[in-house]
Amino acid sequence: MSAYSNVLQVTKMLRNLDAWLGKAEEYAEAKGSSADDFVGFRLTPDMRPLSFQVQSACDGAKFMASRLSGTDAPNHPDTETTMAELRQRINAVVDFLGGFSEDQFEGADAREVRMSFLPGKWARGDDYVREMALPNFYFHVTTAYDLLRMAGVSVGKRDFIGSINLHDDPA
Amino acid sequence: MSAYSNVLQVTKMLRNLDAWLGKAEEYAEAKGSSADDFVGFRLTPDMRPLSFQVQSACDGAKFMASRLSGTDAPNHPDTETTMAELRQRINAVVDFLGGFSEDQFEGADAREVRMSFLPGKWARGDDYVREMALPNFYFHVTTAYDLLRMAGVSVGKRDFIGSINLHDDPA
Repeated sequence: MSAYSNVLQVTKMLRNLDAWLGKAEEYAEAKGSSADDFVGFRLTPDMRPLSFQVQSACDGAKFMASRLSGTDAPNHPDTETTMAELRQRINAVVDFLGGFSEDQFEGADAREVRMSFLPGKWARGDDYVREMALPNFYFHVTTAYDLLRMAGVSVGKRDFIGSINLHDDPA
Repeated sequence: MSAYSNVLQVTKMLRNLDAWLGKAEEYAEAKGSSADDFVGFRLTPDMRPLSFQVQSACDGAKFMASRLSGTDAPNHPDTETTMAELRQRINAVVDFLGGFSEDQFEGADAREVRMSFLPGKWARGDDYVREMALPNFYFHVTTAYDLLRMAGVSVGKRDFIGSINLHDDPA
């Protein structure tokens, strides 16, 4: 499984996340409330709010692509306080990811990936994707989804999974 | 990234999940309550309870390994009503996964994977893992984690991620 295919997968999941936020905006509009109230919503007081879950999913996807390709990631200070700003953040990262091509990930599986919070250590690119980047990314998108479900937004498993590449059996 | 390495990864995540349930049991014991109360706990009334999240994570891991290797998966009726039974279920699947060897997954990336809920369709093995099996698996383990966090169990991100394969830089 190529590193690039995982970049495409997290791009799709960010588009899914953006669609869930769109559903939250519709929900708020129908209720006559402000969608921006969702931004600070938490599953429980000692967990981080929706804004952090979205920012972390965005950073997870962005750093996965930049670390695996050996390129720099754009800086995104975590200043979003509205749903519109969170959706802009997602779309900025989707655009960044869309600028990569498959050949930039040649050799990515064996690349030595270093992270600032693990000084003096490195992980092989394939281990980093499987053991760190993907679990962490899915943690934050699922927690964002769970938050919105708890808040009453009508999202379901199909919204979570999104489109999948299927083939037809012969008729 | 080999299909087998993903089987090892979901095995590790199931062991992590088992450890979170162990922490929930300790929490209940310290509070003088019954850990089995967690089994029916839900994030919100229209979401499924902890038991379902654990059963679904177990099935997701089990079916991923069996579909990618072309072998049969054991049947596990969803009858668990206690934490001890949920942990037995997890450990039965961990044992099942531990019985595979890497050579059983030769050619798995290009294998035609069929699922009963998608009649007349198939997905390539690598697409199935990346687009369906892993997102669905992480959805259920994260939701189980979120449920336990909301219930007051002291689990953190390190418990979620678990052990990772790191290398040391030269001194």
